[in-house]
Amino acid sequence: MTIELTFIPALLLILLLAGAGRLLSLKLNQPEILGELILGMLLGAFVVLAPNAQEPVYDVAKIGILLLLFLTGMDLDFQKFKETMLPASGVAIGGIIVPFALGVAAGLCFGFSKSVSLFVGASLVATSVGISASILHEAGKLNTDTGALIIDSAVLDDVIGVMMMTVLFSSSTTGAVKLWDIIFMASLSILFFILSLTFGIRAMSELSERIPIESENLLLGGLTIILGFALITQKIGLAAVIGAFVAGLVTGQTNYEEPLRNSVSLVGYGFFIPVFFVTMGMRFDTGEFTSIGIFAVVLIGLAIVGKMLGVGLGAKLFGYGGNESLAAGIAMVPRAEVTLIIVHFGFRNGILGSDIVSTVVILVVITTLITPPLLWKFLRKI
Amino acid sequence: MTIELTFIPALLLILLLAGAGRLLSLKLNQPEILGELILGMLLGAFVVLAPNAQEPVYDVAKIGILLLLFLTGMDLDFQKFKETMLPASGVAIGGIIVPFALGVAAGLCFGFSKSVSLFVGASLVATSVGISASILHEAGKLNTDTGALIIDSAVLDDVIGVMMMTVLFSSSTTGAVKLWDIIFMASLSILFFILSLTFGIRAMSELSERIPIESENLLLGGLTIILGFALITQKIGLAAVIGAFVAGLVTGQTNYEEPLRNSVSLVGYGFFIPVFFVTMGMRFDTGEFTSIGIFAVVLIGLAIVGKMLGVGLGAKLFGYGGNESLAAGIAMVPRAEVTLIIVHFGFRNGILGSDIVSTVVILVVITTLITPPLLWKFLRKI
Repeated sequence: MTIELTFIPALLLILLLAGAGRLLSLKLNQPEILGELILGMLLGAFVVLAPNAQEPVYDVAKIGILLLLFLTGMDLDFQKFKETMLPASGVAIGGIIVPFALGVAAGLCFGFSKSVSLFVGASLVATSVGISASILHEAGKLNTDTGALIIDSAVLDDVIGVMMMTVLFSSSTTGAVKLWDIIFMASLSILFFILSLTFGIRAMSELSERIPIESENLLLGGLTIILGFALITQKIGLAAVIGAFVAGLVTGQTNYEEPLRNSVSLVGYGFFIPVFFVTMGMRFDTGEFTSIGIFAVVLIGLAIVGKMLGVGLGAKLFGYGGNESLAAGIAMVPRAEVTLIIVHFGFRNGILGSDIVSTVVILVVITTLITPPLLWKFLRKI
Repeated sequence: MTIELTFIPALLLILLLAGAGRLLSLKLNQPEILGELILGMLLGAFVVLAPNAQEPVYDVAKIGILLLLFLTGMDLDFQKFKETMLPASGVAIGGIIVPFALGVAAGLCFGFSKSVSLFVGASLVATSVGISASILHEAGKLNTDTGALIIDSAVLDDVIGVMMMTVLFSSSTTGAVKLWDIIFMASLSILFFILSLTFGIRAMSELSERIPIESENLLLGGLTIILGFALITQKIGLAAVIGAFVAGLVTGQTNYEEPLRNSVSLVGYGFFIPVFFVTMGMRFDTGEFTSIGIFAVVLIGLAIVGKMLGVGLGAKLFGYGGNESLAAGIAMVPRAEVTLIIVHFGFRNGILGSDIVSTVVILVVITTLITPPLLWKFLRKI
C-alpha cells in the first residue's frame, strides 16, 4: 500500500527523514548522505508523490545538487584545480575507456546487438559527482591532492559523458555522427570555461571590491549567479551542475567568498541538499531487485571494477600513491543522473529493452549505496 | 507577446527582479516589497510560466509566506502578544463588521442579489497579513504596541475570515448553516492555540536546553517544525500561515530563538520571501484594469475606507492614539489570498459572475500596492 502526498506533507516527511538519516549516520559513524539515501529508499517503497507535488519536490532537489556543486567549486583551491588538470585528464580518460570497453564487451558476450552494447558501455561512463563531492566535503579532504584530482576528473568525466551521449544520439537517429555538432558543442564548452575562469573571475573580483553586499542580499545575488551559470551550461548542452560548479570556482576567487560560502552552505545543507539526497533515495524502486539476473550481476561488477581499475591505474600512472589511487577509483564508482538519462534515452528510442533499463537502475542504486561507506573508510587512510 | 519559461529560467528571472526591486525601493526610500511587487507585475505582463514550472514556483513562494509569518511570530514579544489580545479582538471585530456591512450594502445598492452581496461583503473581510508583517519588520516597529496590535488582530481576522467562508460555504451548498461543523472547527482552533502556547512552548524549551543543535541542522529542524505546524492548521481548516506564525511564537520562547531566527531570516529574505512577493506581483493581471467600472471604484473605496474606519475606531476605542489607530487601519487594508479564495469559490459555484471576480482582483492589486508606501509613511510618525 502506498500513500500519495502533496507538496507540504511530502516536504515535511522528507525533512524529517533527512534529520533521522543524519542521526543514524552519526551513530553508525557513516557519512550523512548514506542515512539520507537509505531512509529515502525506504520512504519510496511506501509513499508516492501526488502529480502536482512531483515537479516541485524534484525542483527543490535540483537546486540542492546545484548548491552542492557550487560549494564544491567554491571550496576547491583554484591553484590546485589548475595544477591537477593534467593528471585529471589522464585519470578521466582511463575511467572512461575501461568501463566503456567492459560494458560493450559484456553486452556482446550476452548476445545483445552492437547498438545495444554501445549504449550499455556508454551508460557505465558518467560519474555522479554529487555523492563523492559531498563525502569529500564532510571528510575535509576536498583540498588534498586526491580530492582535487577526484573533482577535476569527475567534472571532465561529466563533460565527456555528455559528449558521448551526443554522439550516440546523432548516430542512432541519423545513422551518422554529426561531426560539426560535436565540434560546435566542444568549442562552446571550452569557450565557456576559459571566459568564466579569466574574464569572469576578474569582473567578479572587481565587483566584490567595489560593492560590498550584506548577508541576505548576498545570498540572493549568489543564487542568481548560480542559476545563471547553470542555465548557460544547460543551453550549451552540458549539465547544469557543471555551470554551478564553475560559478563556485569563480566567486571563490572574490571577496564574496567567505560570507557567501557560509550562507549557501547553511541554506544548502539545512534544506536543499538533504532534500536532494532523500528524493534520490526515493526514486530507487526496490521492487527492481526481485528481477535481478546473471547479466545484472556481471554488469554491476564490471561497472565497479572498471571504474576503479581505469581511474586507479590512471592515477597510479601520474604518480599518486596506492591508497590515493584506490580512493580516487572508489570516488568515481557512483553512477546516477547522466547514466539514467542515457538508458532512458535508449529505451524511448526503442534501442534498449526494459530488462537493460532495470539492470542499470539496480546498478545506480548499488553503486550509489556502496560508495559512501567505502570512500569514507579509504579517505581516512590518506 | 508573452514568453513561456520553465523552472530554472523563471526562478532566475524572479531573483533578478527581486534584486532590482530592492535597489529600486532603496533609491526611492520605499519598503523592499513595493519594488518586488511592481517589478513582478511588469514581469507578469510579458512572461508566463510553463505548466511544469507553475507548481514549483508557486510552492517556493508558499514556503516564502510561511517563513515570513514564522519570523513574525518569532520576533513578536510574547508577553506583548498576550497583553494585546483583548484590544486586538475589539479591533478585529471592528475591522470585520464595517467592511462586511459596507460590502453587502454596496452589492444590494448596485442591484445584486442577496447571496452575491453577502459574498462581496465577505470578500472585504480578510486581511493579508504578509504585506503588513513585512513592512513592520523592515521598519523595526513590530514590537511597538501598534505593531503587536496589528499582527494580533490580523491573525484573528484571518481565523474569523476562514470561519465566515465556512459559514458561506455550508449555507450556499446546503441552504443551511451547519452549526456543528463551525463549532467543531472553532474548538479545534482554540485547542491548537492553547496546546501550542502552553505545552508546546514548555516541551520545546526543555528540548532546546537539553539538545543544543548547530546551524544547518537547526535550520533543518526549524523548517520541519514550521511545515509541521502549517500542516496541522491546514488540516484544522485554518490557513497554513497561521500555523507558521504559531510555530514562530513557540520557538521564539526557547534557546533556539536567536540562531534559528538568523538562519530562517537569511534563507527567507535571501530566497523564499522575495520569490513570494515577485510572484504575487506576477499573478496580478494588469489587463483587468481596462474593464474597471463604477461598481469597482465604489467597492475599492469602501474596502479601503471600511477597514481604516472599523480598525481605526476599534483601536481608538481601546485607547490608542490617533496616528497609531490610523497606522493600524492602513496596515489592515491589504487583501490577498483569502479574499481571492472566497471570490473564486463563489465563482466556481455559480454565485458570482466574472464581473465581480475581476473587480475583486483589481481591489487586491490596488490595496496591495497602496499599503506599503502609506504604512511606511505613517509608521515613522509613531
